[in-house]
Amino acid sequence: MTEYRKTERTRVKRLPKRAEYDVDTVNAIIDEALICHIATQLDRQSLLQPTIHWRDGNQLYVHGSSKNGLFKALLEGNEACIAITHLDGIVFARSAFHHSVNYRSVVIYSQARLVEDSDEKRHALDQLLEKFHRGRSAQARPANEIELKATSVLAFELDELSAKIRTGGPVDDAEDMKLPVWAGVQPVTTQLGEIELER
Amino acid sequence: MTEYRKTERTRVKRLPKRAEYDVDTVNAIIDEALICHIATQLDRQSLLQPTIHWRDGNQLYVHGSSKNGLFKALLEGNEACIAITHLDGIVFARSAFHHSVNYRSVVIYSQARLVEDSDEKRHALDQLLEKFHRGRSAQARPANEIELKATSVLAFELDELSAKIRTGGPVDDAEDMKLPVWAGVQPVTTQLGEIELER
Repeated sequence: MTEYRKTERTRVKRLPKRAEYDVDTVNAIIDEALICHIATQLDRQSLLQPTIHWRDGNQLYVHGSSKNGLFKALLEGNEACIAITHLDGIVFARSAFHHSVNYRSVVIYSQARLVEDSDEKRHALDQLLEKFHRGRSAQARPANEIELKATSVLAFELDELSAKIRTGGPVDDAEDMKLPVWAGVQPVTTQLGEIELER
Repeated sequence: MTEYRKTERTRVKRLPKRAEYDVDTVNAIIDEALICHIATQLDRQSLLQPTIHWRDGNQLYVHGSSKNGLFKALLEGNEACIAITHLDGIVFARSAFHHSVNYRSVVIYSQARLVEDSDEKRHALDQLLEKFHRGRSAQARPANEIELKATSVLAFELDELSAKIRTGGPVDDAEDMKLPVWAGVQPVTTQLGEIELER
């Protein structure tokens, strides 16, 4: 599979030229992000939480306390809508209206699956450590049975999703190009600093 | 008012010591963030979108196309759940289980209000430009009537919300402190670069 399938609700309606369904492009957006936001609903109440995530093939994983209220709502069968967003730049146009932002975002619809198989669960939690620091899963003391039980791991199949990407400079109206107003792009980046070791 | 009111659904249940309701603290988290995520529902379907936001007093503003599907769902009376999240660090503990992240996050429940008054709308859109670059609202060509009509501005009262903050280093179990495993914090920051001017 090289493209995620397009469904009525993942067909990008606003600015469809920014839409992207290519699997490698979408997965790169997912993998570069450290956090996602997960929405669902319970008793007609919208719920939304940020959390860290990681990916293995077509499975997106998150973890949390086994008492997490959002997780409970998801495991009752309420579908998740998950957003992963990178803000890459602030776009300054000559007109107020054409100011914009550069971004890469993915929105995923999926049903949560509780990872119950203990091998998959341990492997997934190792992958989480590896995402944040290669080799870490072999260094840290592994989770014991009590810790594993206190942690829920949820998996979401990556199947029904869309990405949207904006890059480049401002797109001003032709008649505004002569205005004495500067235009350009201010890059926005996420930086991982040096690890501050604890003594 | 110095504290946001606590309601049943904004009382932080998991790790309540990380909860924060102080108005200045919460507002600073909101103001430092460039994007938020807005969830709502329509016909039992969860919807979630990232967007840029700005704040004026107890009003949180977002804007978008007047044809935006999420906005339509919000304006039909479906409540919004809005998250604003800063990831500040990756916390490496001696045990896999105690790995964590430092973060500041706010979750807001609110009903959207369409900003129809044209003075409030123009003022709000000016404030958006000012948030991204001080003085910009006086530089850029102002929106004309067609552009204003194509743009919807939504306001959300900041009232029912909670913040959650984690700072500091790892908190390992006492018996793990002697393990030959390094521990520490890797800072994560968002950087605004130099504006690349368009010639």
